[in-house]
Formats: sequence, structure tokens, C-alpha cells
Amino acid sequence: MSITITAFDRSPDGGRGLARDTRIRWALEEVGQPYSVRPVTFDDLKRPGHLALNPFGQIPTYEDGAVALFESGAIVLHVAQTYPGLLPEAPAARARAVSWVFAALSTIEPPILELEGTGHSERDRPWHAERVPLMRDRLHRRLAQLAAHLGDSDWLDGAFSAGDLMMASVLLRVKSSDLLDVHPTLAAYLARAEARPAYRRAYEAQRSFNTRP
Amino acid sequence: MSITITAFDRSPDGGRGLARDTRIRWALEEVGQPYSVRPVTFDDLKRPGHLALNPFGQIPTYEDGAVALFESGAIVLHVAQTYPGLLPEAPAARARAVSWVFAALSTIEPPILELEGTGHSERDRPWHAERVPLMRDRLHRRLAQLAAHLGDSDWLDGAFSAGDLMMASVLLRVKSSDLLDVHPTLAAYLARAEARPAYRRAYEAQRSFNTRP
Repeated sequence: MSITITAFDRSPDGGRGLARDTRIRWALEEVGQPYSVRPVTFDDLKRPGHLALNPFGQIPTYEDGAVALFESGAIVLHVAQTYPGLLPEAPAARARAVSWVFAALSTIEPPILELEGTGHSERDRPWHAERVPLMRDRLHRRLAQLAAHLGDSDWLDGAFSAGDLMMASVLLRVKSSDLLDVHPTLAAYLARAEARPAYRRAYEAQRSFNTRP
Repeated sequence: MSITITAFDRSPDGGRGLARDTRIRWALEEVGQPYSVRPVTFDDLKRPGHLALNPFGQIPTYEDGAVALFESGAIVLHVAQTYPGLLPEAPAARARAVSWVFAALSTIEPPILELEGTGHSERDRPWHAERVPLMRDRLHRRLAQLAAHLGDSDWLDGAFSAGDLMMASVLLRVKSSDLLDVHPTLAAYLARAEARPAYRRAYEAQRSFNTRP
């Protein structure tokens, strides 16, 4: 079955890999499945054809002839449950890896997105300067808990899993800031994730895609 | 295997059912599995014993002797994948239901929590009055997309599933506000979910628990 995902026709980040199709590309590279990418413009996102695939007008979506999915968490989990390579075999360890997928998306990503949102859409508001430190403090508390859990381990719970893929994908959003400077454990974790050949291939693929003529 | 979940010793909402243990209780009621509840105080949340179960010091957690999990999304999904009643049999429909679990937690809940956060922790900040309408507008756009998808259907994608359970759990957070007044489709959807016997049992169980002497 041939896999097709959607991605922004041109990612707003210009190919830095922060759009959510990168997570799916990475997962598919980890499990060794080829895929094709259908570009979607911002106008396309609001059209019935795309809304039938994703009612919230977002990317990525995933189609493989048998199933059509949306939400990067669901897609990564589907890939991980369909092909070997991203989840442990043992049922208990497998379920714990899924806990980490949700922790990345429900506990770590929201304060990152709120800080980003404050930095972008509220940049010209009078409260911007005062609110950013509040958001940073909140995020630092979560990052400190994550670092404490990680300790000296390479990955969150045994071998690299879909949980690490999602956590690293979320942490990549703050890589260009100074936020990880006080969490060297997490900076090293992120560097290990980025060094994976599957991530490198996914990153290069999205960069080529977003910088094509 | 006997199932134990954790819940706040006393939920800050006084038993209105908004703490995240309610989602797990509801899922377990839907699949007909008994469970016991271990109360956790706010002090307990920071102790090593609890952090070993949930590194972020949150409730709920789930233990059944074979597996220990955290994150309400992961727990609901585990219950749904372990016992029949919350996911369709057909693989494609099953995967779509999982898309809706993630949509509830990643697309609908964050703007709700950000609005709540603005209403609580930033209530005394000078920007509160100006920021709340921005957050409300953002949430309304998402709710309108959700209502458009739902249309005349009873549930999000065929029969009631874990996706509906999670979406309704998230929408319950705004039930006491006026936010659903302009989305009658969603108010009716939520009423259908609340009318389910399994939800009633879960609600009453958490209410009794949180109002015990």
C-alpha cells in the first residue's frame, strides 16, 4: 500500500523542520516505509477536499489506501503499531511508550506552543514583555521534571521509541531558543535524537521539499 | 487483574467531574471493568513514589499489575485497546477513532486550557480583560470546525468511541460557560454523551469520592 502524507506547500519555517509533517516523515524513515508528499497551500486547507481529511484544516494527514488519518500523534502511533521499529514488543513497555507520546503532546507541547503564541501573535500587545517570563517559568518547570526523569538514560523508557520521537519533535521547537541551556540533559537527549539516520533523512527530505524551486 | 487509578484526594473542582480521573472512570465503566481509586494529596504528587508513576506529578495514573501508565489519553487508549466497547472492530475505523482521541487532546483542549489559565492564574494581571476575548475567539474557531464536522451525526465517526469519550470530556470543561451557546450542535453532542449510563456512573462515583466525609 502506498503512503501519502500532506505537508504545507511551503512551510512557514522555510524548511527548519518544525512543521508537523517532519514527525511523520521521521516515523516512516524509522520503520523504513517509503511515502509521497502532497503539498497543500493555505487556501487548500480551508477547502472541502482537505477538511474531509482533517476537519480542523491542519497538516499533516496520512492515507495509505486502507485508512485516512489526521493528528500527528495518531499518525505516528498508527505507523508505530503497523510496522516494527518504533514500539517495544512487550505489551507493558509498548503501552508505556504510548504514555510518552501523549506526555509529549499533552504535557510538554502546550506550554511550548503557548510561549510561541505569546511571542508571535501577541508580540505587539502591551502585556507581551510581562507575560513571556510567566510562560517561560511554567515551561521550565516541565522541562526540569522531564530532565529529572531522564537522568542518565539515553531514552525515556528503554530503547528509542515513538515516545522519544514525539518528545524530541516537540523539544525541537525550542532548540533555537536559550530554553534548553539550563537543561543540558535535554539538550544532549535532543542531540542524540537528531543524530539518528532516520531523523537526518526526514529533515533533509522536508528541507529539500520546502526549498524546491 | 485488579485495576487501580489515582485521583486527587479532593478534586479542586469539588466533585464537578473535571479532574482527569473522570475520563478513566468513564472508560472503565464503558467497558465494564471494576477499579479502585487511590487518593493522592497535592503533597503526594511531588513525592518520589508518585513521580515514579507520573514524572510530571499529575493524576491520573493507572496500574493493573501488568502495566503502569500515565497521561489520560494513553490510559483511555489502553483501556479501549484492552477491553471491547470503545473502539470499532474494523482497523481503519479503529485508527480513525484514535485520531479523534488526539484531536480532543491536541487541538481542542489546549485553547480551552489556555482560556482557563488566563481566567485563573492571570486574573489579576492588567492584560486579563483584553486577552480573554482573543482566547475565546481562537477557541470559537475550533469549536465551529468541530460542529461543522459533526453536522447531524450523533457521534464523531460512526458509533460512540474512545474519541467521543475524550472529546466530550474536554468539552465538559466549558459546559458551565456560555461558550457552547453559539454551538448548539456541540451542546447537544455533549448532552448525548452525559446521558450515557457509563458516564452517569463515573460522574456519581467521582462526586461521592470528592464529597466523602
